[in-house]
Amino acid sequence: MDTILTHEACKRSQLAVRDTLDVVGGKWKLVLLTVLRTGKRRFRELSREVGITPRILSKELQELEMNGLVSRTVCETKPITVEYALTPYSETLSEVLDAMQRWGEQHRKKIIV
Amino acid sequence: MDTILTHEACKRSQLAVRDTLDVVGGKWKLVLLTVLRTGKRRFRELSREVGITPRILSKELQELEMNGLVSRTVCETKPITVEYALTPYSETLSEVLDAMQRWGEQHRKKIIV
Repeated sequence: MDTILTHEACKRSQLAVRDTLDVVGGKWKLVLLTVLRTGKRRFRELSREVGITPRILSKELQELEMNGLVSRTVCETKPITVEYALTPYSETLSEVLDAMQRWGEQHRKKIIV
Repeated sequence: MDTILTHEACKRSQLAVRDTLDVVGGKWKLVLLTVLRTGKRRFRELSREVGITPRILSKELQELEMNGLVSRTVCETKPITVEYALTPYSETLSEVLDAMQRWGEQHRKKIIV
């Protein structure tokens, strides 16, 4: 009985982590969200700041927008600019982003020593 | 001055998240670590449980081992079996894994409603 419970719990946690990775997995999304936490950015700013080609950036932002994590605003400037910002829903990811940031900091200290 | 500080802080947090993704990024590593949290596994068990081909699994486990997150033990059974388990250092990732798991659970609830 215990084994069955453990097996079920394991499947559930595996599924949950996969669900998260489906939304924010890959090389760029968590990095983009981290940058946007410090304030909204224009498309070009993001592209330059993160070092990501416009084509890939556009796809990543579209997916983040589709999942309700990033908002896209077209500004009536001349020329037209497009601004990206975090949505209120993206705040649910704070814990994930904070944990990843802290781990990266401690791991760098560990491997440099 | 404030802008400079913010810019520096942003670069630092971006770097930290990238560092973390360098070690546990990709499609499989966080899933493998999540499964191994419930106990050690043989290579074949992991392959079946996660649904990952032996070739990719072998590469992922090697990288996790290289970064001190997973240990590999050859058991003198007949035929020889190889067991994988989490290392004590992998416990530093608990916060990341817990946060990812919780987010996946809440996100699934949100999109199903």
